Amino acid sequence: MVPHRVPRWPSWLFRASPGWAQTACALRAWVPQGRWPGSSRGAGAASPLARRGCSSMPSQPPEVMLTQERYPVRRLPFSTVSEQDLAAFERIVPGRVTTDPGELEAHNVDWLRTVRGTLVCQAGCVLEQLSRHVEERGFVMPLDLGAKGSCHIGGNVATNAGGLRFLRYGSLHGTVLGLEVVLADGTVLNCLTSLRKDNTGYDLKQLFIGSEGTLGVITAVSILCPPKPKAVSVAFLGCPSFAEVLRTFCTCKGMLGEILSAFEFMDAECMQLVGRHLHLARPVQESPFYVLIETSGSHAGHDAEKLGSFLEHALGSGLVTDGTLATDQRRVKMLWALRERITEALSLDGYVYKYDLSLPVERLYDLVTSLRARLGPRAKHVVGYGHLGDGNLHLNVTAEAFSEPLLAALEPHVYEWTAAQRGSVSAEHGVGFKKRDALGYSKPPTALRLMCQLKALLDPKGILNPYKTLPTRA
Amino acid sequence: MVPHRVPRWPSWLFRASPGWAQTACALRAWVPQGRWPGSSRGAGAASPLARRGCSSMPSQPPEVMLTQERYPVRRLPFSTVSEQDLAAFERIVPGRVTTDPGELEAHNVDWLRTVRGTLVCQAGCVLEQLSRHVEERGFVMPLDLGAKGSCHIGGNVATNAGGLRFLRYGSLHGTVLGLEVVLADGTVLNCLTSLRKDNTGYDLKQLFIGSEGTLGVITAVSILCPPKPKAVSVAFLGCPSFAEVLRTFCTCKGMLGEILSAFEFMDAECMQLVGRHLHLARPVQESPFYVLIETSGSHAGHDAEKLGSFLEHALGSGLVTDGTLATDQRRVKMLWALRERITEALSLDGYVYKYDLSLPVERLYDLVTSLRARLGPRAKHVVGYGHLGDGNLHLNVTAEAFSEPLLAALEPHVYEWTAAQRGSVSAEHGVGFKKRDALGYSKPPTALRLMCQLKALLDPKGILNPYKTLPTRA
Repeated sequence: MVPHRVPRWPSWLFRASPGWAQTACALRAWVPQGRWPGSSRGAGAASPLARRGCSSMPSQPPEVMLTQERYPVRRLPFSTVSEQDLAAFERIVPGRVTTDPGELEAHNVDWLRTVRGTLVCQAGCVLEQLSRHVEERGFVMPLDLGAKGSCHIGGNVATNAGGLRFLRYGSLHGTVLGLEVVLADGTVLNCLTSLRKDNTGYDLKQLFIGSEGTLGVITAVSILCPPKPKAVSVAFLGCPSFAEVLRTFCTCKGMLGEILSAFEFMDAECMQLVGRHLHLARPVQESPFYVLIETSGSHAGHDAEKLGSFLEHALGSGLVTDGTLATDQRRVKMLWALRERITEALSLDGYVYKYDLSLPVERLYDLVTSLRARLGPRAKHVVGYGHLGDGNLHLNVTAEAFSEPLLAALEPHVYEWTAAQRGSVSAEHGVGFKKRDALGYSKPPTALRLMCQLKALLDPKGILNPYKTLPTRA
Repeated sequence: MVPHRVPRWPSWLFRASPGWAQTACALRAWVPQGRWPGSSRGAGAASPLARRGCSSMPSQPPEVMLTQERYPVRRLPFSTVSEQDLAAFERIVPGRVTTDPGELEAHNVDWLRTVRGTLVCQAGCVLEQLSRHVEERGFVMPLDLGAKGSCHIGGNVATNAGGLRFLRYGSLHGTVLGLEVVLADGTVLNCLTSLRKDNTGYDLKQLFIGSEGTLGVITAVSILCPPKPKAVSVAFLGCPSFAEVLRTFCTCKGMLGEILSAFEFMDAECMQLVGRHLHLARPVQESPFYVLIETSGSHAGHDAEKLGSFLEHALGSGLVTDGTLATDQRRVKMLWALRERITEALSLDGYVYKYDLSLPVERLYDLVTSLRARLGPRAKHVVGYGHLGDGNLHLNVTAEAFSEPLLAALEPHVYEWTAAQRGSVSAEHGVGFKKRDALGYSKPPTALRLMCQLKALLDPKGILNPYKTLPTRA
């Protein structure tokens, strides 16, 4: 996989090396080198992959149940990998075919350890390596997320990943310029243009962005990379209530304008978990809510002036009770780690029920409050955090272990509540295996029917990422 | 058609009033009121619609040939509008059904007067009215184009219109949040969310953005509107050669960063035509090339400082030989008119052969130069202008009248040249009727096949915008 810059444009092509068909084998070449994104710790931090494979977890959790044991899934009549298949792959990628069960385990278990598929792999470059590659050349990737150390660009596009830069650079539907996709019948669909504008017929690449590999396998991506900002600052603030978080957001949009690049929030329980499980220190006084604001601009002096005026106003008017500001890269990373590593802290707290919702901002936190009352002591923690600037709440509930009654108290309640607000039951994480029967809460039957028709058109045998994305009954 | 702001978001819903099915009738309510975008003239300027209908052209051009007379199109076995149909429409939109041939003429002839379909109409709000509506409330539409006085938002989305704000706000694939679409079988597909993020299944609205009405009729649009910039400035500069235009662009991107909102260029012949046919005065010394740079930002002082430094550098280093700067709205509009009204000046120069190409920026102007040599005196003018910031060249050739030999000298030469640069034969204007057989220059057979499959899936009877977008032979 060699990313190369397209000379005429600040866009980048990411192409898989010969032999895209590594779906059935693990490519060791792209395993991240023991780095944990946003971590300020050294040797103590396990790599995401090691974590997924659990080779260095503090206490070894029990082996993950097979999906078909936990969920009522019946295997479709697919064939299984034969010795001949392995020999064919060995010819395509010599010396890189893995059959070691221990090594494959990491690729077959999701990192939440709730689903075990049998063959899962995405061709691609690791997002963090790409980011470094383009940043050395004066650009940035238009997306960034906590999992950047292990996620692959092909997977990011296939799942229409959102993340931390969405507020500034928007969705991958706008920033992806071209794709190469292998269709279910083996045909290579080449839409790998690097042009900013191209209205020659239907924009086919859009079909595959966010289709989670169910319509085709993305093998190469061309993506528009904006120039690297000359100055990046992060403010970490404490807010007395969620109403003040919202008022801070409105004020901030008005005063920071085009240099605002992220507006994230987290509640007090998130901060407690990050402190308890990851030993990260709280940088401001204890508050009911915390806000992380990032600015990115082309003139450090101008940006500092804008941010200074905003902070003065926010503190003076009581929107914010305490705050800290970082402009050097190390401190910026430390502040970001508080937000980015919440997911990791939650996973160390027990079994996690995760929801990723789009909601009207003014009602975004109501669900967290009402769930705390509804669940009572059955839940260890009910926390809310996320991309407030995009109306995206990450709602997480932790418990000692998975339990059916707790799940029944959460679902369909969470989905029904979201549907009543005309929100989305999956803002940026996608549908996958676990949410496919919740689609109807956010999409009408006509839309679901058309999705199934598209699936039937592009993958009539249902061989691409089966049991995913589309409702079971459809 | 009543646009209303969605309270929780700076996004806007544009919904057609009851009775979307005005395909067969002209809705007088949305006829623009004699205003010509960017015009600094008063009563002398004809409205675009009047121009299309030719009711106030200085000299009446001959009646436009029927499409089936000029082009080899055979009518598909569709039925014709009956008295019963008219009565049905009259029930749906009482008093607004038009059968007057003179009034319908304007809707049946494209404004270039080369194609006469029989029934053309788009439901929708006029873009300029929408812009005004949202600007009064502190926002801007994420798209803007010369035709804003007459084009409809439904049509803008259906054709994935690019335009003058593309550089800053990107494509409609990124800014459109939701659509309501009527499918070929009459089903209403409601994907009219106003959420910024929604990953519940395939992003179906993307299918219809840019499909030119061939897959469904867009009846309502929800679109993300960025906050209105507090300060807008325009610089109009003269450049000694195209190489300097390119260097000015690179310098400008680096120095203006996030406040750069447009970078347009035009050649000396464009300026001459604008002067000759529209009597607009050249604001700077005569130059081989002119560049229009717009900045939009949240702090007038900061923006002026950035723009000042850039202009000083550009003049000092010889990138630019002369320039003028505007910050008040009237002067800004006057400078924009020089660029926006080129199309109008060209149409007054004779018959216009129009090409809208995406090309590598460094070769963008080569085609104009080589075509001048190739065509010699057969062409009145060969001009190049466009959205340099997006790699988008508008190449126009004028002649006294339409001539087959001149067309043969242009096509397929222009398309082959573009294909050799891996460019696009339609950057932002779309395919429509005239370019459908040129698609193959920018898209591989696999892509064309998939487009036809999608058309067959969504419109098996071929009743939606027939004879358009897809290749004849497919």
